[in-house]
Amino acid sequence: MATMWHCQAVTSVSTAGAVRQGSLRELNLAVVLRRIAGADRPPSRADLAAATGLTRATVSAVVDDLIGGRLVAEAEPAPRTGAGRPARGLVLADHGPAGLGLEVNVDYLAACVVDLTGAVRHHVVERADLRPVSPADALTRLAALAADAHTAAVRDGLTPAGVALAVPGLVGAGGMVRLAPNLGWRDVDVPGLLAGHRLAEAVDGIPPLVVENEANLAALGELHAGPPGSASFLHISGEIGIGAGIVLDGTLYRGARGWSGEIGHIPVHPQGRPCRCGGQGCLERYAGQEAVLAAAGLAGADLPADTAASRLAELAEAGDPATLAALADAGTALGVAVAGVVNLLDLDTVVLGGGYAPLAPWLRPPVVAELSRRVLTAAWSPVTVRPAALGARSAAVGGASSVVRRIIDRPAGWLTRTG
Amino acid sequence: MATMWHCQAVTSVSTAGAVRQGSLRELNLAVVLRRIAGADRPPSRADLAAATGLTRATVSAVVDDLIGGRLVAEAEPAPRTGAGRPARGLVLADHGPAGLGLEVNVDYLAACVVDLTGAVRHHVVERADLRPVSPADALTRLAALAADAHTAAVRDGLTPAGVALAVPGLVGAGGMVRLAPNLGWRDVDVPGLLAGHRLAEAVDGIPPLVVENEANLAALGELHAGPPGSASFLHISGEIGIGAGIVLDGTLYRGARGWSGEIGHIPVHPQGRPCRCGGQGCLERYAGQEAVLAAAGLAGADLPADTAASRLAELAEAGDPATLAALADAGTALGVAVAGVVNLLDLDTVVLGGGYAPLAPWLRPPVVAELSRRVLTAAWSPVTVRPAALGARSAAVGGASSVVRRIIDRPAGWLTRTG
Repeated sequence: MATMWHCQAVTSVSTAGAVRQGSLRELNLAVVLRRIAGADRPPSRADLAAATGLTRATVSAVVDDLIGGRLVAEAEPAPRTGAGRPARGLVLADHGPAGLGLEVNVDYLAACVVDLTGAVRHHVVERADLRPVSPADALTRLAALAADAHTAAVRDGLTPAGVALAVPGLVGAGGMVRLAPNLGWRDVDVPGLLAGHRLAEAVDGIPPLVVENEANLAALGELHAGPPGSASFLHISGEIGIGAGIVLDGTLYRGARGWSGEIGHIPVHPQGRPCRCGGQGCLERYAGQEAVLAAAGLAGADLPADTAASRLAELAEAGDPATLAALADAGTALGVAVAGVVNLLDLDTVVLGGGYAPLAPWLRPPVVAELSRRVLTAAWSPVTVRPAALGARSAAVGGASSVVRRIIDRPAGWLTRTG
Repeated sequence: MATMWHCQAVTSVSTAGAVRQGSLRELNLAVVLRRIAGADRPPSRADLAAATGLTRATVSAVVDDLIGGRLVAEAEPAPRTGAGRPARGLVLADHGPAGLGLEVNVDYLAACVVDLTGAVRHHVVERADLRPVSPADALTRLAALAADAHTAAVRDGLTPAGVALAVPGLVGAGGMVRLAPNLGWRDVDVPGLLAGHRLAEAVDGIPPLVVENEANLAALGELHAGPPGSASFLHISGEIGIGAGIVLDGTLYRGARGWSGEIGHIPVHPQGRPCRCGGQGCLERYAGQEAVLAAAGLAGADLPADTAASRLAELAEAGDPATLAALADAGTALGVAVAGVVNLLDLDTVVLGGGYAPLAPWLRPPVVAELSRRVLTAAWSPVTVRPAALGARSAAVGGASSVVRRIIDRPAGWLTRTG
């Protein structure tokens, strides 16, 4: 429905009869809410009427519904700039529905709550090496974290209305995790294992639980949180595994089966180190966290991902030669893989996310050097390489934001519930 | 405008006033023509009325316009299957506008004519090593070939209504060829150099000359000519250079600046052979035509691209060990690069096109072997690797087809001209 109102010349050739009252109301709610969400400054009811072509009476009725349903609130009055009483601007409510974002990764669990305005209201990370833990036990621990987040949200006056769960692996139909090689998961029925846990209120049109690749959700997080401008970028999540989210024209590109972005398994040395995946010379074996720690002389230190990145950053900051060499080599390998991606996709922005974000000062120069050497079009327009705005663990925030986005795109389901 | 008629619920919230008569006629023409183009069997006027929601009188008037403008024709009567006179089915006209597709490549020039039905009505290839020739001279020769194709089209009752020109390089704004490394072109103003040659009739809404990367046009050719089913695929044009066209959900993905698909410069051996592009270890140096000829002991034979592919195929067919080894090595290098692409994009189909098409029997096994080893998701759904339906030189046909597609999408411009 994103561009529906651009198609106004259409009914002339459609076979549709009269628009049903129900769907018309739904459409008006969505149109008005999206205007409020996308406005540069809080619009008044009159602004909304002018922008949508709806009558003022209709706008007022729709806005009353949205305020009553805790989707919209009146902003603080603007300072008076002229004669007359200033109209109250309308903003998204920070006390209505919220998205719950969860993440299970190799060495941590995370839960966060994002409200309708996009603000992160709660964010908890629990460190744990989940490799020796069964999927059922890992998900039970995650559910406990989620329940705490839910409680915190409700205490804040929010109502979690959908859950997005990030996993470092391939997600198949129905949320089945086909393979998460670094977790050792294979064919894990995540929704089944979480079935006993009600994590969010049931809302028509909002899936109660979406399971998605963590690199994809992290890219969505970057899309929502990152600087405006580039709507097409590659977001790389550097953890023990390396995943990428590809955003093309503001939309996450998921691939034929939702399995895009496995940049960690791009071969960078085809005859090189064997990889857990069965391949050989995969990027992950040269630029994944374990490879970097080993090269820096920290093998076996068994640090959690964010600690590992911070520790490497500290050592690099202090000028430790082994760490600097390890990061330079990792950046070169990353640059080789990314050069291939840019040659293929002609992207102008590459975002270093996850554990790469705090290491960007050292990874960026070798990445840029490889891009300059290897990208055919580098001479005409260099590729921007920058750290992620959300940094490490953006997947949970991206997931929660995607829930919020769904509510904004289709508010009627939420209002029916409260109605 | 591709999906306009799906938006019928929209005027209720639009700010549009009455639909202008002109735009309504244009819309009706496009809707009816696209129905005819996409129908499984020739629809009658009554079928069209039922399918579009237009009145029979409107459909009849629209169809009269389309027939008068040589866009539509009445099909031969269907065999009688019941009582009554069978209604005449409507088909796209094979005596109306046509697309002119041109290609300038390293060792050949090509021109072809495609009519509205998609049939290739004329196709001429002229072999010539264009590396020592100036861009102006090369384009003058191409213009002569294009003039011959134009004459042949007119003799057939067709009217060339737009030109697409394929080049093996990066095309910038305004049809400027930024770089065609294997031709030695840099910043060549192709439309400027062709300005003296009127190659097609001017039609409102149809660009008189589109310059496009050859791998992109070849992929479009495959999209139009290939087997139905997969609307997402990677089409690889293996010539002296190696380019790829990426089709996602039936649409060519062109990248941020139209420079996507440079698969020939994906690094497969980062410390390997230096490449003309300034990089090192690019796929092209291992699987491009020159590399394969050299490995097969045919270096310096200076064969035109299609002759080179045929010659290699003959030698492989005859069991020549050097040729078989050369093709196996090229296929392995290609498989390494394509494995990276599939890991990144999750595509389920890879098409071997251009000079690779006749070599597919030998290239396919090593490509498939590398994909099986290196694609993370290979166990769940293997990637289909097949030769291109159009084979070598599909770029000119793809270009001509893209012109035809534009006319079908926007017939009013053409009718105004004839009107």
